[in-house]
Amino acid sequence: MTDRLHSFTLGDVTRDNARTFPDLEALVCGDTRLTFPEVDDRVTRTACLLRDLGVQPGDRVVWIGLNCHRLLELIYACAKAGAIATPLNWRLKPDELAWIVEKVRPAVVIASAREELAEANAAARAAAPGAAWVMHDDGSYEARLAAVDPVDPELDLDDEMPVLQIMTAAFAGRPKGALLTSKGIVQQDLVLAAVRLIDPGDDVYLSSGPMFHIGVLLKTFAIFHWGGKNVMIPRVDADEICRLVDAERCTSAYVFAPTIRQMVESNGDGRYDLKSLVDTVGGVPPDDIAGPWFAMTSCAPPRFTGTIGYGTSETVGMVTFEYRPPAPIGTFGRTSPVVALRIVNQQGAELPPGDVGEIIVRGPQVMAGYFDEAPMDTKGWRHTGDLGRREVDGSITFIGPNQDMVKTGMENVYPAEVENVLRDHPAIADACVFGVPDPEWGQSVRAVVESSGDLAEADVIDFVRARIAGYKKPKSVIVVGSLPRVEGRVDRTAVKAAHGA
Amino acid sequence: MTDRLHSFTLGDVTRDNARTFPDLEALVCGDTRLTFPEVDDRVTRTACLLRDLGVQPGDRVVWIGLNCHRLLELIYACAKAGAIATPLNWRLKPDELAWIVEKVRPAVVIASAREELAEANAAARAAAPGAAWVMHDDGSYEARLAAVDPVDPELDLDDEMPVLQIMTAAFAGRPKGALLTSKGIVQQDLVLAAVRLIDPGDDVYLSSGPMFHIGVLLKTFAIFHWGGKNVMIPRVDADEICRLVDAERCTSAYVFAPTIRQMVESNGDGRYDLKSLVDTVGGVPPDDIAGPWFAMTSCAPPRFTGTIGYGTSETVGMVTFEYRPPAPIGTFGRTSPVVALRIVNQQGAELPPGDVGEIIVRGPQVMAGYFDEAPMDTKGWRHTGDLGRREVDGSITFIGPNQDMVKTGMENVYPAEVENVLRDHPAIADACVFGVPDPEWGQSVRAVVESSGDLAEADVIDFVRARIAGYKKPKSVIVVGSLPRVEGRVDRTAVKAAHGA
Repeated sequence: MTDRLHSFTLGDVTRDNARTFPDLEALVCGDTRLTFPEVDDRVTRTACLLRDLGVQPGDRVVWIGLNCHRLLELIYACAKAGAIATPLNWRLKPDELAWIVEKVRPAVVIASAREELAEANAAARAAAPGAAWVMHDDGSYEARLAAVDPVDPELDLDDEMPVLQIMTAAFAGRPKGALLTSKGIVQQDLVLAAVRLIDPGDDVYLSSGPMFHIGVLLKTFAIFHWGGKNVMIPRVDADEICRLVDAERCTSAYVFAPTIRQMVESNGDGRYDLKSLVDTVGGVPPDDIAGPWFAMTSCAPPRFTGTIGYGTSETVGMVTFEYRPPAPIGTFGRTSPVVALRIVNQQGAELPPGDVGEIIVRGPQVMAGYFDEAPMDTKGWRHTGDLGRREVDGSITFIGPNQDMVKTGMENVYPAEVENVLRDHPAIADACVFGVPDPEWGQSVRAVVESSGDLAEADVIDFVRARIAGYKKPKSVIVVGSLPRVEGRVDRTAVKAAHGA
Repeated sequence: MTDRLHSFTLGDVTRDNARTFPDLEALVCGDTRLTFPEVDDRVTRTACLLRDLGVQPGDRVVWIGLNCHRLLELIYACAKAGAIATPLNWRLKPDELAWIVEKVRPAVVIASAREELAEANAAARAAAPGAAWVMHDDGSYEARLAAVDPVDPELDLDDEMPVLQIMTAAFAGRPKGALLTSKGIVQQDLVLAAVRLIDPGDDVYLSSGPMFHIGVLLKTFAIFHWGGKNVMIPRVDADEICRLVDAERCTSAYVFAPTIRQMVESNGDGRYDLKSLVDTVGGVPPDDIAGPWFAMTSCAPPRFTGTIGYGTSETVGMVTFEYRPPAPIGTFGRTSPVVALRIVNQQGAELPPGDVGEIIVRGPQVMAGYFDEAPMDTKGWRHTGDLGRREVDGSITFIGPNQDMVKTGMENVYPAEVENVLRDHPAIADACVFGVPDPEWGQSVRAVVESSGDLAEADVIDFVRARIAGYKKPKSVIVVGSLPRVEGRVDRTAVKAAHGA
């Protein structure tokens, strides 16, 4: 049963912002500049278009395309129409994209007419023969919006309904669709302002990361909600980022170290004024360019430390933040004020501070569930599959994904924790840790480490023993020149096959 | 059906704060100083005590007493037990109190053994013969808490259940019980931090207003939620407020103009250092003591402007705030980011900016309903009964309560608006406006004004006509030396009876 009276949906965000900020600019994308009332009008038109295309509450609407103000409008329009916006990663290979589209069964696909996406579109079309198809950047979409009679549908929807589907990384096999609700997104909008990650004032955010990731979108949503300005850029382009930061006086942008390096190089002559920029949403300059970067921008510490927090797609992003003095011991700050978080063992029992276990969470930001899977147990917790530790001061350290736990005697050893220690060794570039059969202990810990130097097994073991509990140290160490990788990640299956799990 | 997975209740606030802020002090009350884990332990013990006294989910637990840390613990304990905390105004006359207690039918009453409350307690006891009764300040309550085996009940409760009942002012007849939910209170906790009314850091708040009012409690809740410190004081006492601000380095306190005057007098010799104080939650010093007050504290503008916003008990307090540049035209700021707000006419149709109408709201802060009345229409809006205006920049001006609307011809005139104008007249101390029968227009506007001077009717009418629409001006003006009052408010019924409504 819907409860509209006590709801505040993404549809309400745009409706009320049109009234509260009638004169303010909300979105800038290429030559398009839109105030909040103009955005709300376009959101209503988009919702009407979706309805005219046959979209019913609960239907999925897929977006295939680069960053664009129309994607943000589409998400808010889905909130008004009761549909679920599903932005896909346009960089996927055509058959990966087709697999997702077939699984998602969209009622409508909004796609890009760019030549580089032609092959992906063709694969997606074949996978969703029943979907209505509109190209958003060849003029046809705008013509259809202009032809609509813009009457806000004002459906009886509440904020616990899914409004956005984020396809997760394919850690194990195929990606899943995390169904995020208006309630969860609105909570995160409030929390980001409360913990001072955004300012409910003149913030101008350059959405310079891919908007199919919640890590980019969550700030876009929050800036929009609080009456700030979002500037769109189709894809990462260092020179264009510099130009837009200068022209729009952006206060924050989504840039990581490689882009920061390109920006420093691109703007070597200082032709762009980047002094408005105070926040790079997690991106920290490499040491060798920190000097010129901090001189060129306003990102120098202490304003920005690089630590943001720990989060997952399934929880509308971050569930821990650095937000309250004194400085936390845990490297990922403290739990969000609307997230219950526990560190538990395999039996689900809470562990004391200092012990590593699985991170489980509860709260309004938790997804409604994965698309086409069994509904979640509403009496339970969301098990993240990630490992963490609560520190003695109550703060949180994220260790890594919970893969291949090793059971040695009565103890559990989490490879991610041991690997993190090994990577701190000056002669070790990367490491893969797993369990091998042990006649006495069931399993023992083995480390395969990547190194170009000369490493003694005993020294590596001592290095680990000096840093974490002794039972976690490797019993055997194998040194290799390079570890096998797939898409940049260590291929654990191959390492284990080669080195005897 | 409860949804614990997506809930964050007041019970979760104290559970998680015990883990996140294990070393921080949460509450100071007299000689009692409690950390977050100590508070959570006491909250659990209180929940167990309530259970042992027979409290079931949905039951009411009444508090009769002055401000005390035990009241705050009781509210969080009710969240863990599924009960509804109902703090009563201990200044009410015994029969008023008895009327409320009889209506509320509490399972448990937690009362004060202070001599001054003996008569009130006796009346309440007679009105609730079935209730269990515990005195919280004679040692018996602490003995019972100490005897409990503190196991958190961890009931299957969600955040849409009522947890706090606030008795509203008795504008029309008898008070009503507004049932506030965990969800609503948690939302307000986030919003207060996001709009910078509290700092998620070392804020220290002196709860120096009566904690049976949501206007006091909402800040107490938010400070607790964000890991700050709440300092309790039983009742308003200017010298003790000065002493506590100094001793605890309070950053904010709930004080109005009369208390500010007493503090300036009490601390004339400067024996207390009040420089930590930056915020008085709405209290503004009268002009003649602004100089010494600003010199004595850190409350001088621009840090504090005196404007906070518009709110009601039924919405966990404020639904508008000053929070985003540029400065708003509306004197009550902008709508909260999780409140949908409309200005509507009597038919419920939205009015354009500039027009006065009723304020209606929707969102998670809206109460679950009034105790023992029909449930609210979950497809509808909360009608506040208050009048407001949206300004052309989207901001909000609160006009006053919608009492005695005058229908003159086709026009609606709201007395509150006309009275506000009249009070701006230099020779008018107060005013009461209402409709009187008019053969031509149905009703016409009459003003009864309080003045010690010589006032010409025509001048008063001209004064109003110069400021608001002509149809709103009084057609007749009656000057009186003083208006009749009840509890400080103008007694409109008596004025109308005497002057011919």
